[in-house]
Amino acid sequence: MKKSITLYFLCVMALNSSCQKQNPMTIEQVETALITTERHDLNRVEPPNWWIGFKNTSLQLLIHHPEISKTHPEISYAGVSIKQVHKANSPNYLFIDLEISKNTKPGTFNIIFKQENHEDLVYTYTLKSREQPAEDYVGFNSSDAVYLITPDRFSNGDPSNDIHETLLEKTIDRSNNYARHGGDIQGITNHLDYIQDLGFTAIWPCPLLMNDMSQGSYHGYAMTDFYLIDPRFGTLENYLELSSKMSKKGMKLIMDHVANHCGVEHWWMKDLPFKDWINHQDIFEKSEKDQDVKNPIITSHRRTTNQDQYASEIDKKAMNEGWFVSAMPDLNQRNPFMAKYTIQNSIWWIETAKLSGIRQDTYPYPDKNFMSTWAGEIMNEYPNFSIVGEEWTTNPLLIAYWQQGHQNKDGYNSNLKSPMDFAMQDQIVKGLNNDESFSTGLIEIYKGLANDFAYAKPEDLMVFVDNHDMSRIFTQLKGDVANTKAALSYLLMLPRIPQIYYGTEILMHDFDHPGDHGLIRSDFPGGWEGDSANAFTTEGLTDAQKDMQIYLKKILNYRKTSKAIHEGKTIHFAPEDGVYALFRVLEEETVVHIINKNENGIQLNTQRFDEMGLKGKTLKNIINEQQFDWPESLFLQEKGSIILSTKTD
Amino acid sequence: MKKSITLYFLCVMALNSSCQKQNPMTIEQVETALITTERHDLNRVEPPNWWIGFKNTSLQLLIHHPEISKTHPEISYAGVSIKQVHKANSPNYLFIDLEISKNTKPGTFNIIFKQENHEDLVYTYTLKSREQPAEDYVGFNSSDAVYLITPDRFSNGDPSNDIHETLLEKTIDRSNNYARHGGDIQGITNHLDYIQDLGFTAIWPCPLLMNDMSQGSYHGYAMTDFYLIDPRFGTLENYLELSSKMSKKGMKLIMDHVANHCGVEHWWMKDLPFKDWINHQDIFEKSEKDQDVKNPIITSHRRTTNQDQYASEIDKKAMNEGWFVSAMPDLNQRNPFMAKYTIQNSIWWIETAKLSGIRQDTYPYPDKNFMSTWAGEIMNEYPNFSIVGEEWTTNPLLIAYWQQGHQNKDGYNSNLKSPMDFAMQDQIVKGLNNDESFSTGLIEIYKGLANDFAYAKPEDLMVFVDNHDMSRIFTQLKGDVANTKAALSYLLMLPRIPQIYYGTEILMHDFDHPGDHGLIRSDFPGGWEGDSANAFTTEGLTDAQKDMQIYLKKILNYRKTSKAIHEGKTIHFAPEDGVYALFRVLEEETVVHIINKNENGIQLNTQRFDEMGLKGKTLKNIINEQQFDWPESLFLQEKGSIILSTKTD
Repeated sequence: MKKSITLYFLCVMALNSSCQKQNPMTIEQVETALITTERHDLNRVEPPNWWIGFKNTSLQLLIHHPEISKTHPEISYAGVSIKQVHKANSPNYLFIDLEISKNTKPGTFNIIFKQENHEDLVYTYTLKSREQPAEDYVGFNSSDAVYLITPDRFSNGDPSNDIHETLLEKTIDRSNNYARHGGDIQGITNHLDYIQDLGFTAIWPCPLLMNDMSQGSYHGYAMTDFYLIDPRFGTLENYLELSSKMSKKGMKLIMDHVANHCGVEHWWMKDLPFKDWINHQDIFEKSEKDQDVKNPIITSHRRTTNQDQYASEIDKKAMNEGWFVSAMPDLNQRNPFMAKYTIQNSIWWIETAKLSGIRQDTYPYPDKNFMSTWAGEIMNEYPNFSIVGEEWTTNPLLIAYWQQGHQNKDGYNSNLKSPMDFAMQDQIVKGLNNDESFSTGLIEIYKGLANDFAYAKPEDLMVFVDNHDMSRIFTQLKGDVANTKAALSYLLMLPRIPQIYYGTEILMHDFDHPGDHGLIRSDFPGGWEGDSANAFTTEGLTDAQKDMQIYLKKILNYRKTSKAIHEGKTIHFAPEDGVYALFRVLEEETVVHIINKNENGIQLNTQRFDEMGLKGKTLKNIINEQQFDWPESLFLQEKGSIILSTKTD
Repeated sequence: MKKSITLYFLCVMALNSSCQKQNPMTIEQVETALITTERHDLNRVEPPNWWIGFKNTSLQLLIHHPEISKTHPEISYAGVSIKQVHKANSPNYLFIDLEISKNTKPGTFNIIFKQENHEDLVYTYTLKSREQPAEDYVGFNSSDAVYLITPDRFSNGDPSNDIHETLLEKTIDRSNNYARHGGDIQGITNHLDYIQDLGFTAIWPCPLLMNDMSQGSYHGYAMTDFYLIDPRFGTLENYLELSSKMSKKGMKLIMDHVANHCGVEHWWMKDLPFKDWINHQDIFEKSEKDQDVKNPIITSHRRTTNQDQYASEIDKKAMNEGWFVSAMPDLNQRNPFMAKYTIQNSIWWIETAKLSGIRQDTYPYPDKNFMSTWAGEIMNEYPNFSIVGEEWTTNPLLIAYWQQGHQNKDGYNSNLKSPMDFAMQDQIVKGLNNDESFSTGLIEIYKGLANDFAYAKPEDLMVFVDNHDMSRIFTQLKGDVANTKAALSYLLMLPRIPQIYYGTEILMHDFDHPGDHGLIRSDFPGGWEGDSANAFTTEGLTDAQKDMQIYLKKILNYRKTSKAIHEGKTIHFAPEDGVYALFRVLEEETVVHIINKNENGIQLNTQRFDEMGLKGKTLKNIINEQQFDWPESLFLQEKGSIILSTKTD
């Protein structure tokens, strides 16, 4: 396994650097490639390799090389045929449609680009065999707990990769919240034990692909090469090692993907293949030549146009074709070559890195029909895979619309298993921050969850109390530790896939400038040599930080094996007197979560919960581990939350 | 027609007063009833009469008379048979299931109640023929505009019926907002021309049935007899005359119905038929005997339990079985006799008064399965009928759930055509009151309407800017006339059934105590002899009031014949620079509604609306009637709304 990964890594590196040197090959490869000498005469062929054995037996290669459109590609390899060759508007591109028949053998073959009066150009292409069955790409689900990491800010595992002189942003500066800080893949890999011990079963690192932008490249969302790991985060080998180590630990790796846009420094921006490769391309091209032309047109962000049956055509375009921000060209997925490029790119990464899931950025911004196709094609190849899509809306109607299986009046089927649940996030924060009244306080949380009837599968939604784009939960909850614990423990009880942002376990906050993106994504203490505090060892942490770490660890580790939380029935009781109780039940296991908003102690008459059948049962407080018989009256001695379970062993 | 109504009225009056005198009969009745002498020995038989020709050929009679359960009823009439006789818990009730076969002739027959050693009791019952085909009961729809009236406060057409010494509330006092003021059915009938001239096509009077309550009886929602018009509002004859006159004018009458509760002074409260006739009946009965027992248990008002898949059983009961207020016993529709009673009562009124629609109060409070049956049985008999149900929620998920045709995950089908649209009401007020920003102001209205994708049939929702339960729109909009006009004109452009509360046309308000129910329902000026102002004649109105009257009249009358508004396509454009445009289009008719929030004039570039195809067309401002060619730039000279139409004739 290790050997083939190394081989593979070298191969991809070779492809991307147009290197012509011969790579070591497996025996199988040697056998099938005997008649060829590996040559990579072209600047760029993408996907850089492919596999046999997909349900979809077609493959479209993007070829980028000066004047390549003047050539005629030929392939001679059993099972592989060229169905069609497409020229683009730029003479430097060809798109080749290949058909790879079911019985094709893995191996390498030459694509020979012929041109009259010129020497042939040759590109040796590899078709690999698949290393695991499609069914084994098992996605995340409600049995998981996802740790979200901003890789630049978590841990600098390899200081040698911090600076790359060939890239536009050349410096690291930990004193600048918007500069790179040096965190990397190795930093995550080094601390898998920490993350797993906390009780997480999956990791979603923000994007790790090349972001060769002149500034702000740390966040990773302005990709300049969809097939390359950003070298400041490490190498493809590092990424595969992370995936492999996680897999061995039973953990799941989620890749953050962006279909909507790229970075303005993306390699193709200097030579766009088609006239409609990106949206508002004409304006972009004019602006490149004429400084008076203002570029670009920014999206209206009026996301309801995706659903609104009354939306005007101009508003739909303004939403979907406008650029997300000026540094991120908006990809035109209605161009079928772009569409195929993006789908194949996703499949390439899933197959290469044995991913368990993809998190798709800015879900409602690309063309929605494309998004349905994109998700559909992935799910077709990987039936057990998971995709989570980000639409930042607190309107459950929109969330419901995006979920696969929802009966949409317009017939739209997203093929998306897991929309993000920003609505519940919002209700949790409001419910804890607002004073108790008939319609405010805990009732807001209760009503938020009551909306689940409208979702096709609420347990497939991904929920969170904060993420990399919003003020940290401890800040949102005004530094109230009891409420922060209540928010997190409630989150982990929900019929959902919970996601927690790195550093939440040590009360990281952004009080200095609430909502400031750079500050939200602060360095994780201990991630850098010489840090004064170290959250991995607890050295230098405050008591409150240590306490929160233990608190989360206890709940997460309880959750890990709790079938009742993973897939049990949910029953909740409308808040009364500042107390809200949620139950999760499966067979003999009942988990009780109670939030108490009263500053002083309160006696809770448990008669109201009689239908839960807890009379005569022994319960354990999973935080302090005390056991007691379910009482007629439960004394809640302080504000905050308690979690009780009938699993007492 | 008139004659039979009169006859019918006398007959019903006779039934309800246990009168045994012989009534005049039609020839038909005389023929079929020759062998009988009309006798009404019993206190109460309900429904007081019935019809032949319904799809449902069963009828259940409620008999209330001392010790009636000791008797054995017999009927001898061709086509009518007793299927079953049910005793209740009280000895003073019988419920008789009749089967009325398809070929039964209209006429009267005696029900003879036999008992050993006692003289027979006889009740002459009438089966009438139906006066119009079921299909002719045509409900309201989006071509209508509904005028909502609080009858006690609109016009006192018959001062002779103001006080009834036999009733508990004996006085009228116009200086007290919570006392009766004397308005009545005759007051509405007298002013049908006014209402129709304004442009309304339907009237929804708040309940007119008997409310023999000791106080607060003016609002009508605490019914004490479901088969009697409150004599302070008039007689059944008055009601039938109102219906008949409206029908002749092509107007639709909507009856306000309450299935959830009755008034605590309802006649049956002193002798409840079953132990479970009302919810929490045991507590009610104890409280009647023991002053220390607090009655009743009030509903939790946690209406989401109707939909919430996680709601606890105790919370569902707390919602559905609790009383709405302490003076209104909560009817138990899970008792099948109560269920049938309520359904038959509704059908009786539809058939008797030739109704066009029912407005059902507090829709989510009764048992929801019963509500589905109730609406289903009505719609089964009257396929073109309309029912509008009140759920006061701003959550579109709940509104959508209640509408017939919505795909609910739990399989619930409400059979309800028209839920009320409190969500849109809320968005309109917020959108006009809030300052313009990316996420506040007109965008709130736009987003509210964008939610329509989630409704099975948004055009069947009933929308309004205020009603009898909330602060008047002029007050909600802080006395801003331009915004009030914008709210109303927008309302009337929507793909909805619009409802406007009486007095809105003359800027009635409740500034003195915003939201005070009695004040909201103030007397309509001119409705009482000697009023200093008279809105019917415009005498004594302020200029602003007259202006609003004309404004609404112009729009409503335009709307009356506008197919584009009734059933046209809707297209709207996301607000920009404080301007929001909505278009309604059908064939050659385009109606343009524009709201401008800018205090100063603004030039509106119309290029953005090119897709509407208005270039080169002439439009008319339907308020000032100016005509002009659709310009490239439209000058909106002041804050407010304009309505333009391509119908210029």
